[in-house]
Amino acid sequence: MDDAERRAKESSLCDLYDTAPMKNTFGLELSYNEKGQAVFHLPFQEGLCHGLMDVHGGVIATMIDNAGWFTAATEYDTWINTSEITVRLLEPANQEDLHSVGTIIRAGSKICVTSMEVRGSSGRLVATGSGTFIVSQKILH
Amino acid sequence: MDDAERRAKESSLCDLYDTAPMKNTFGLELSYNEKGQAVFHLPFQEGLCHGLMDVHGGVIATMIDNAGWFTAATEYDTWINTSEITVRLLEPANQEDLHSVGTIIRAGSKICVTSMEVRGSSGRLVATGSGTFIVSQKILH
Amino acid sequence: MDDAERRAKESSLCDLYDTAPMKNTFGLELSYNEKGQAVFHLPFQEGLCHGLMDVHGGVIATMIDNAGWFTAATEYDTWINTSEITVRLLEPANQEDLHSVGTIIRAGSKICVTSMEVRGSSGRLVATGSGTFIVSQKILH
Amino acid sequence: MDDAERRAKESSLCDLYDTAPMKNTFGLELSYNEKGQAVFHLPFQEGLCHGLMDVHGGVIATMIDNAGWFTAATEYDTWINTSEITVRLLEPANQEDLHSVGTIIRAGSKICVTSMEVRGSSGRLVATGSGTFIVSQKILH
Repeated sequence: MDDAERRAKESSLCDLYDTAPMKNTFGLELSYNEKGQAVFHLPFQEGLCHGLMDVHGGVIATMIDNAGWFTAATEYDTWINTSEITVRLLEPANQEDLHSVGTIIRAGSKICVTSMEVRGSSGRLVATGSGTFIVSQKILH
Repeated sequence: MDDAERRAKESSLCDLYDTAPMKNTFGLELSYNEKGQAVFHLPFQEGLCHGLMDVHGGVIATMIDNAGWFTAATEYDTWINTSEITVRLLEPANQEDLHSVGTIIRAGSKICVTSMEVRGSSGRLVATGSGTFIVSQKILH
Repeated sequence: MDDAERRAKESSLCDLYDTAPMKNTFGLELSYNEKGQAVFHLPFQEGLCHGLMDVHGGVIATMIDNAGWFTAATEYDTWINTSEITVRLLEPANQEDLHSVGTIIRAGSKICVTSMEVRGSSGRLVATGSGTFIVSQKILH
Repeated sequence: MDDAERRAKESSLCDLYDTAPMKNTFGLELSYNEKGQAVFHLPFQEGLCHGLMDVHGGVIATMIDNAGWFTAATEYDTWINTSEITVRLLEPANQEDLHSVGTIIRAGSKICVTSMEVRGSSGRLVATGSGTFIVSQKILH
């Protein structure tokens, strides 16, 4: 994949994400960095908090799932399915804005393995994750 | 813990959950079954869907985290922290209403391990999970 | 698969296991129970202990991997590959003889998900696990 | 901890490992690299193979558990217990000599989280892992 193809692929994945209703519910924004990694940015939002008024672990899991999925998806022309994710919550989010980023560990023909990180706006590491995505035969668009 | 104490504990955890802003955002309802397991019920809601219009894996992770946390919490008088969860997405939710339930595997003095399941309204198994919760010194209420 | 076919399949998997050099190194015996679950039995052996003289967690992970793999393999005519396992060590083995058992959570065409347990000879739960196995095209025998 | 203290700590952990009977059974050697990470080296050994004559996944899990444990242990004066590990088997070991290395993600007062890698002698990534270790009150030596 050359650079132009990669940018086109990322742009088409951003378009796909724009159609996801959960994008607005979570207020979670997708971009790709210069390394081709999906980055999700989450402005702090009270509506995503648990009873002690910090960002819910399930929201952080969502950021981790998305970061892995949208990073892995750049490697394939078909839909991929999240098979499993492991989420490690290291520190409270402390009401900071958060961002997650995905890294490809191995992109195989059947499955893709990624690792993910969630950091606060200060750069502090809040959570890590890893996951497996299954490559389907379903062509995207 | 006798039966009345257990019911009081469950009731106080339901009250705690009522204060969680994410409850309304997700439309996710908590109850306890006769075995003392936390059960979360999620009516299908478009706003929680990914781009292929089915319930997002992160929402299922949220149901798994909550089912484990609120089941584990019945065993302690202090706050517990989710340390890590593993989430296995087995089948698409197919826009069914979903419910999750937690089971205690081992409730120790320092950590509690639980397993969790998510099923569709038809009873079909959609996802499984497991997790570790760390017992803190922070007294609840 | 009728009962005779299942017994033949189990018998052929036991034969396969007999060729595994690690069988003798670990002293780990395979059988199938009446539900078709792989059961591995590990007599206590000092050579498998860590520095505090109890069975090493990696040995327990081996029992969990094997229990899942040999249970999942009954569902397929092709080789399967362990993709990932999660291992939860709940209690020390306390130098007891151990056995592990696998349970199929979902056997799909591409992947199989199992859960596993390790118990001491007294029945005490020592560890739990879960795992994903990828179905290959490689025919067994 | 200054440099001399760190070297003394590493040396005492190597001594501890020398007392582990599994060291000889597996032929698995411990050293610490210049970053203070535990590195385990495994010369290929037929006795650790599964039926297709490659290194068993449980042996790789053992290398991952050890790499995390002995890296985490440098941060504490007390014994730590492996609580759970996730192991991702990416590629067959192909009968190469293997080495594993641990990295501390977060060393807290109650738990330590690490990530781990296993590579072949060629540098090829064979497996990744992550884990949680619980800090006990049991003083080492």
